[in-house]
Amino acid sequence: RYGYFGKVMRLMFCKVSGCLTDGRFNFSASGKTSVSIHSRDIEGLRRLQKEGVTVFLLTCSQDPIGPALVKKLSEKMGFEVLKVGENPLVDLRSIMKERGLKWNDVAYMGNDEADVIWLNLSGLSGVPVGAPVDAANAAKYSCQQAAGMGAVREFSEYIIRKKREAESHQAA
Amino acid sequence: RYGYFGKVMRLMFCKVSGCLTDGRFNFSASGKTSVSIHSRDIEGLRRLQKEGVTVFLLTCSQDPIGPALVKKLSEKMGFEVLKVGENPLVDLRSIMKERGLKWNDVAYMGNDEADVIWLNLSGLSGVPVGAPVDAANAAKYSCQQAAGMGAVREFSEYIIRKKREAESHQAA
Amino acid sequence: RYGYFGKVMRLMFCKVSGCLTDGRFNFSASGKTSVSIHSRDIEGLRRLQKEGVTVFLLTCSQDPIGPALVKKLSEKMGFEVLKVGENPLVDLRSIMKERGLKWNDVAYMGNDEADVIWLNLSGLSGVPVGAPVDAANAAKYSCQQAAGMGAVREFSEYIIRKKREAESHQAA
Amino acid sequence: RYGYFGKVMRLMFCKVSGCLTDGRFNFSASGKTSVSIHSRDIEGLRRLQKEGVTVFLLTCSQDPIGPALVKKLSEKMGFEVLKVGENPLVDLRSIMKERGLKWNDVAYMGNDEADVIWLNLSGLSGVPVGAPVDAANAAKYSCQQAAGMGAVREFSEYIIRKKREAESHQAA
Repeated sequence: RYGYFGKVMRLMFCKVSGCLTDGRFNFSASGKTSVSIHSRDIEGLRRLQKEGVTVFLLTCSQDPIGPALVKKLSEKMGFEVLKVGENPLVDLRSIMKERGLKWNDVAYMGNDEADVIWLNLSGLSGVPVGAPVDAANAAKYSCQQAAGMGAVREFSEYIIRKKREAESHQAA
Repeated sequence: RYGYFGKVMRLMFCKVSGCLTDGRFNFSASGKTSVSIHSRDIEGLRRLQKEGVTVFLLTCSQDPIGPALVKKLSEKMGFEVLKVGENPLVDLRSIMKERGLKWNDVAYMGNDEADVIWLNLSGLSGVPVGAPVDAANAAKYSCQQAAGMGAVREFSEYIIRKKREAESHQAA
Repeated sequence: RYGYFGKVMRLMFCKVSGCLTDGRFNFSASGKTSVSIHSRDIEGLRRLQKEGVTVFLLTCSQDPIGPALVKKLSEKMGFEVLKVGENPLVDLRSIMKERGLKWNDVAYMGNDEADVIWLNLSGLSGVPVGAPVDAANAAKYSCQQAAGMGAVREFSEYIIRKKREAESHQAA
Repeated sequence: RYGYFGKVMRLMFCKVSGCLTDGRFNFSASGKTSVSIHSRDIEGLRRLQKEGVTVFLLTCSQDPIGPALVKKLSEKMGFEVLKVGENPLVDLRSIMKERGLKWNDVAYMGNDEADVIWLNLSGLSGVPVGAPVDAANAAKYSCQQAAGMGAVREFSEYIIRKKREAESHQAA
């Protein structure tokens, strides 16, 4: 009954580009791409993992961040990485089904119109400050921090807070 | 008759340095240069392409961004790249002539005095926020977003909006 | 008696991530990480060294900055580097004990909750502007400059000023 | 008599760290350093060269920017590079003597206390916005633009403007 309080929150889907990064990527003459990530945000995702929330980093097919970068991120950070295709609904649902989870068990952080559906469906959802109006309206929580500069940490702590609240409700 | 509404918009010329990037380039001891690009801007240019607008990225001869970087950008992003020389008018006109296009069919995004002539001639033209007064006055549209941080996306959506308006005028 | 004025200040512990850097690290497809450091901050730490203060750069085990980067930083900058583990109290105390120092002889610069204990214990302590409330309240000095943009320099000069004051008190 | 108007301006000394860059350098695990430079600033220095002003980029011995990076900058940009040592007065004076120039023939851009003497002596001198008070007071011109983001371009245009004024005074 308190699922929407984050009680059974099991998964966190977090977009890499524009949530974990500020959306920019560095592009060199040798074709290498790199991105900037804040250690505070990584720490936020780690705290979620300690709370039993599995973290999936989402990248999309048109993302200029190459697969090698995504794979390295995954290895280094210890998070799952999911490359969503033309129909992301299919990809996310298959992961949820695999684990027997419902939308109320899932948190989602996104930053643009393409994320509106997930921001609406997920039990908890957040956007970085300055997200487009559509996305901000769909999200349950709007961060005060900017993308790539602490928004992921802020949303992670919000999830943990909601989890604690739900646990104390249940205990009461 | 509604050409200036963007109806027949066929080409988009977009300066790399100071429009698609914030103007800075990273320079290493090994002589490598790299630039930062926002995925939101790339997405904007892709949307233009889906609307049938061919995108040309412009770099100029005195640009510290080397030819290798430009070539890689072109390959990776799938846009045309045009290196303009001492007399850019010649370069741009030859591309327009090749395709039988007039200025009203062309959109231009620039950011300094050297671009004033194109900002004036093109059917639609834009500058990032904070552009020098000369350029800003010449442009039909001044973005609220900064160079390298969403200005190209904003201008791309402006072009698409104008295209739609022109289409509905024509249909009416 | 004037130890808390910085008279015998012998050690400076300075966190790398979020104090000497702005907290972000750059991550490339080849798995390389890099960080941005301000020459003004390096100069601040060098001034401390000239005053006889040994500088220790602190990194923590969950820091995404790899050991290779930390080692290079140490070599290049000429500062000691201390990788603190699960129980940092042990690591710092062993260094202080080795040198026969008390907390009043030590300056500490940190930026988050995990640093509260050191910010409280150290003779002089500082945080960059925008640090979390807990850390800012525990610190004796709050910098006007941001992390990675001069905060370390500002705190270094504060330490030197306090040292001078203590010396003139003692002379009086 | 109008030397201080920039009439015979022959040399421009411009600090790399904190004037041409924002003071930060990127440091990687492999020990590589890189810096970010704005194409607008490079263009400013090129305009000075076209006006017959020789541009010297200054780096100092304690600068974390390595010699390889400085050498590459010099090659790529086509400017002279001068590595000043413990006593910069000697280095700069020897260059001026070599060319038979006086301080009134020289422009200087610096950003901290160490530059106060040059900012005072040079015929024209400038600092980026936000420079320490000592430096800002010594400079004849305080830029509205920040270091690494257009300050060098702004100061370059100021020099050219002063040169024109001096020429028209002389012609009158």
